[in-house]
Amino acid sequence: MPDYAALDRYVEEHMSAWTDELTQFCRFPSESTDLPALRGAAEWIAERLDRLGARVDTVELPGDPNVPPLVIGEIGDGPMTLNAVQHYDVQPAVPYELWTTPPYEPEVRDGRLYARGVTDNKGELMSRVWGVEAYLATLGRLPCRVRFLVEGEEEYGSGHLDQLLDLRPGIRKVEGALIEGGGVDLVGQPEIVGGVRGIIVVELFVKSIAYDAHSSLATVLPSAPARLIQALATFWNEDGQPAVDGLNDGVLPPTPAQVAIVDSTSTADLADRKREFGVDRFLGGMNEREAIRAMTFTPTCNVQGLWAGFTGPGAKTITPAEAHVRIDIRLVPDQDPTAILANLRAHLDRRGFEDVKFGAKAEQERAYWTTPDDPLLDAAARVSEAVFGRPAKRRLSAPGTAPMWQVCGRDTIRMTSLGGGHDDCRAHAPDENYRLDYAAKAAQVTARFLDEFAAIDG
Amino acid sequence: MPDYAALDRYVEEHMSAWTDELTQFCRFPSESTDLPALRGAAEWIAERLDRLGARVDTVELPGDPNVPPLVIGEIGDGPMTLNAVQHYDVQPAVPYELWTTPPYEPEVRDGRLYARGVTDNKGELMSRVWGVEAYLATLGRLPCRVRFLVEGEEEYGSGHLDQLLDLRPGIRKVEGALIEGGGVDLVGQPEIVGGVRGIIVVELFVKSIAYDAHSSLATVLPSAPARLIQALATFWNEDGQPAVDGLNDGVLPPTPAQVAIVDSTSTADLADRKREFGVDRFLGGMNEREAIRAMTFTPTCNVQGLWAGFTGPGAKTITPAEAHVRIDIRLVPDQDPTAILANLRAHLDRRGFEDVKFGAKAEQERAYWTTPDDPLLDAAARVSEAVFGRPAKRRLSAPGTAPMWQVCGRDTIRMTSLGGGHDDCRAHAPDENYRLDYAAKAAQVTARFLDEFAAIDG
Repeated sequence: MPDYAALDRYVEEHMSAWTDELTQFCRFPSESTDLPALRGAAEWIAERLDRLGARVDTVELPGDPNVPPLVIGEIGDGPMTLNAVQHYDVQPAVPYELWTTPPYEPEVRDGRLYARGVTDNKGELMSRVWGVEAYLATLGRLPCRVRFLVEGEEEYGSGHLDQLLDLRPGIRKVEGALIEGGGVDLVGQPEIVGGVRGIIVVELFVKSIAYDAHSSLATVLPSAPARLIQALATFWNEDGQPAVDGLNDGVLPPTPAQVAIVDSTSTADLADRKREFGVDRFLGGMNEREAIRAMTFTPTCNVQGLWAGFTGPGAKTITPAEAHVRIDIRLVPDQDPTAILANLRAHLDRRGFEDVKFGAKAEQERAYWTTPDDPLLDAAARVSEAVFGRPAKRRLSAPGTAPMWQVCGRDTIRMTSLGGGHDDCRAHAPDENYRLDYAAKAAQVTARFLDEFAAIDG
Repeated sequence: MPDYAALDRYVEEHMSAWTDELTQFCRFPSESTDLPALRGAAEWIAERLDRLGARVDTVELPGDPNVPPLVIGEIGDGPMTLNAVQHYDVQPAVPYELWTTPPYEPEVRDGRLYARGVTDNKGELMSRVWGVEAYLATLGRLPCRVRFLVEGEEEYGSGHLDQLLDLRPGIRKVEGALIEGGGVDLVGQPEIVGGVRGIIVVELFVKSIAYDAHSSLATVLPSAPARLIQALATFWNEDGQPAVDGLNDGVLPPTPAQVAIVDSTSTADLADRKREFGVDRFLGGMNEREAIRAMTFTPTCNVQGLWAGFTGPGAKTITPAEAHVRIDIRLVPDQDPTAILANLRAHLDRRGFEDVKFGAKAEQERAYWTTPDDPLLDAAARVSEAVFGRPAKRRLSAPGTAPMWQVCGRDTIRMTSLGGGHDDCRAHAPDENYRLDYAAKAAQVTARFLDEFAAIDG
């Protein structure tokens, strides 16, 4: 085993400069609706990978300049290649007023850097870049090839990732892949996940009248919000659990090995989750063991946004012509997003809600899980335990989504999470932050993992 | 009967200049949240009433400069006084993008002036001012006292009107009152109403978790929008008609005279209403006769706005911490808004929705109806028929709300509508407009009405 003491020192010595560069990266408001910022962030990371010594290849979708490019940065060589699946786009920062400091003016407070995207995924990506840099600086030549695949549509369904990857044949045929980051729970235990859930994001709307009416006409005119509310109310049971017909279609029954992994997972952090969100109980009164099982094996049906009529301060006595909702549904293997969307449509139609329409575009991604006994997961667990000094928890799947099906599904490539993203990093929420001590550990974990990965036998 | 030919000519000759001054008035964005614009509009109308020759009295609420003033303009004398109940505030103009031209840059197109508030109520108010001016210019001294009561909170529940009126004792004790305007239907028939409905506007909200969560946690965390949706779904039956417990408490059974008035009303314009709003049927499959009865005698329960989570373009995979709805409920005599609000609360609590909270402030106004055989209504009908050249329709009540209870309820003052507001004026909606030919007729109607009013015997 190499001596990592010099590498660890290198990381510690560079954290201040690296924090400055992560600050730069986080200044790009690279939300899905801001193409100039997306292109700015893409150029920034391409330049940074070039400085690392990587061969950089910026892949544009021919004929569609509105698609942010895939930035590929490849470094090292040898028989083993690791695809690190990352992204430079970020979630919308609204509502701004809930941020302590502005989301695109990063600030360090109490050992954390605060900014939109600082963990998800700019920070997790940069920790891996720093890990490679530290390896090169202190241990020399990389023991394997590392290929960063940095896309710009991850937070909006990775809608063109498959097409972009197809432009570089063979890019998916590798010996392993990394999910965009890796977790550390609220009590400091690293978590290793071997999968991601899939997702559907779909907008539903009702248009009941030609234009907003004076609300005195509510006696006789159909109300778009009332109609949408009545349709949506059928989506959950009384306890708030999903009740959409066929939502579970295609769910594979858990294998004994999968159940064993899930049931061996500590539930210690779930009590912290309750405190964090100020809830007394989980949906349906699930205990913590049931909650972990459900978060692994069960699809969701979530309202991410809802809007109709006048939503400003004061009042406006109208009967709104339209009402809208955006739903996301998390999927598990082997659910087909297209089939689940059709089930949602049929659920509405069966109840007479043909007037509840789907929006033009539905984001769709499949789930993908590695088998739980894969040696890649063992390797990730070993290096995480070494660096974080605590035993790693194993999970079959992250509760969230990443485009691993697109990168790994076709060729059944093994994959794992790896890194230092902490459960209280507020990914997707105001005051997103990244603990700088964990950012350093994530770099150290990455470097050690390269040696473990290169040593995996088939 | 006086000869009104000169008066009519005076009105026609002045419409161009008057349109210019109405344009000025409509440039104030006097929405309830814009105090400087409200004060600007108040000063403008005070100055205009002064130029008319009125004794102007601007009433401020002592100690609360945030309350827009009540502008009183009194002109004429004699034993009979008519209170004209008007307002200078307007509905919010959002969504701006649905306006053909900006709401506060008035523009004439095809004989109509387009602007927020151009009918409701700046235009209807100005038509009355013009009617008085034309009377003075062509017929001389007014036959009665006219008192304009122009408030600035009408679109937000007239919350301080009672207090402002109390500062001028005796101001309510008059021989008759005018509702803020008067209607002409889509086929050109004037409508005379003897009442207004009351209203409750209340915000309801759910806060289910401390802050927005990553939507992967939807499996276990309670969803504020799902919870609000389930509560709201109980507010209507399957056909969209109100189903709130006790919503009809206090409704007086219609008298035979009231039913006769309602059933004698032509339903001709209701077919146009269906076409205007692009609907095939009214709620619950009501026919036009039933629709008119319901619009008169039945309370409503309307969603004017609904909002939760991320409502921008794209997607944001969160489980929102909060969800909000703003409801308005139209009331009829003799419903007590406080009792109905308590019924709404009880409706929710009875179904286990104690977590659906009420917002801090609920707007509340009572309904008020004059008896249908009052001579003031006959007078309004006669002058409207004379000017519009078509028989007037009689209605017990407008479907909408105005603060007539506050002005007339205490002393049971008779009241009527009067004017030229047309059903397709898009009050409260984008592209609000005022037909300038009807604006002129409204001035002529007002002038004639003063003679009729002065001649009413007790």
